[in-house]
Amino acid sequence: MQEFSLDKLAHELRAFAEERDWEQFHAPKNLAMALIVEAAELVEQFQWLTPEQSEQPDPERRRRIEAELADILIYLVRLADRLEIDLPAAVATKIEHNRSKYPAERVRGNAAKYDEY
Amino acid sequence: MQEFSLDKLAHELRAFAEERDWEQFHAPKNLAMALIVEAAELVEQFQWLTPEQSEQPDPERRRRIEAELADILIYLVRLADRLEIDLPAAVATKIEHNRSKYPAERVRGNAAKYDEY
Amino acid sequence: MQEFSLDKLAHELRAFAEERDWEQFHAPKNLAMALIVEAAELVEQFQWLTPEQSEQPDPERRRRIEAELADILIYLVRLADRLEIDLPAAVATKIEHNRSKYPAERVRGNAAKYDEY
Amino acid sequence: MQEFSLDKLAHELRAFAEERDWEQFHAPKNLAMALIVEAAELVEQFQWLTPEQSEQPDPERRRRIEAELADILIYLVRLADRLEIDLPAAVATKIEHNRSKYPAERVRGNAAKYDEY
Repeated sequence: MQEFSLDKLAHELRAFAEERDWEQFHAPKNLAMALIVEAAELVEQFQWLTPEQSEQPDPERRRRIEAELADILIYLVRLADRLEIDLPAAVATKIEHNRSKYPAERVRGNAAKYDEY
Repeated sequence: MQEFSLDKLAHELRAFAEERDWEQFHAPKNLAMALIVEAAELVEQFQWLTPEQSEQPDPERRRRIEAELADILIYLVRLADRLEIDLPAAVATKIEHNRSKYPAERVRGNAAKYDEY
Repeated sequence: MQEFSLDKLAHELRAFAEERDWEQFHAPKNLAMALIVEAAELVEQFQWLTPEQSEQPDPERRRRIEAELADILIYLVRLADRLEIDLPAAVATKIEHNRSKYPAERVRGNAAKYDEY
Repeated sequence: MQEFSLDKLAHELRAFAEERDWEQFHAPKNLAMALIVEAAELVEQFQWLTPEQSEQPDPERRRRIEAELADILIYLVRLADRLEIDLPAAVATKIEHNRSKYPAERVRGNAAKYDEY
């Protein structure tokens, strides 16, 4: 992956919304809804595939998956920007949390151990 | 936001999965499911709030929102890594697409114009 | 609402799938994915509306909402049928559970009390 | 499945909300969010299972699936009630639509034919 700046993306998306007078629609509640709609469009690409088939999407499906991942990241960054959340810091905190919650030697090869159920 | 590297995060998450022998569970189909589950946990934080209230979450709710955004980004980067998708390139393509689909002068202040409906 | 039979609907949907040799795709995992995709299409109808606007959808939007609710119910009944789950019994159990979890006198007018957060 | 009345359920849920003064929170926008949150809790039960494993959930997981299906149906009926939508009529219309969209002889055994992609 090429490098890129979350900060720069946040500013670009903010300008995009301002130019269209869309900030009025971008309450965090609404952005969370838009994000899950995009997440569902991603899920839709995989719904009838086996897990194995999902590893090898054909070129047309791959193109759609790329577009959905982009849409999710766009709404994610937009929402973080609206609430002034520091995404890299949030990710670092979460990874630290996951390291202590799921010690490698305790959960190895076991999905159930990290299953909410 | 501090800068961070998507590439570095992708490698870190891959190592995390490998150490736990979790790669076997991380078929793109399954990761898409995990991602939407996290997106719903984000939606849950906003479901009974008004759009206005969603702009000013209290500290406890803000902490939860941060954690959910982190979880979504983690699964997003994990999925892109599994399918070898270049996220920054996908985002750039999508923004370009949005610029021609929604010219500022045509859609200003109008959610319906960018509504799928 | 006119009366209708969940049992009859389950049989109708099963016949529909069998006639198309689609039972092979209808593993509960896949049906759960299809259901959430339809739920997101419902969410999409409301994402840029205020809560107040969502009470009064225009005729075209109302038609779409009806179609999405139907799709959700269809996948819900299909999934219950595949796992031989008795939906009316599950609903009765859940309502009983909610009655003791949220006593009217304790939670009156308070969304936070029935918020997961 | 035992028979049950959607109408009776709608009335029961309405009374439940009124007794708690929760009607104020049940704008269709909010109910759609609550519904997708429950749909995601259903998806979560299946996320790390293979399609084959999802056919045979263990008793604890089955109990959770039943509860999630009930929650989805509850919010579905609540939302239809708030918008005065006739669910059985909507389902009948949708099944008719699906019959002409997916003629059995044309789509037999082919998920791609009913895939949105």
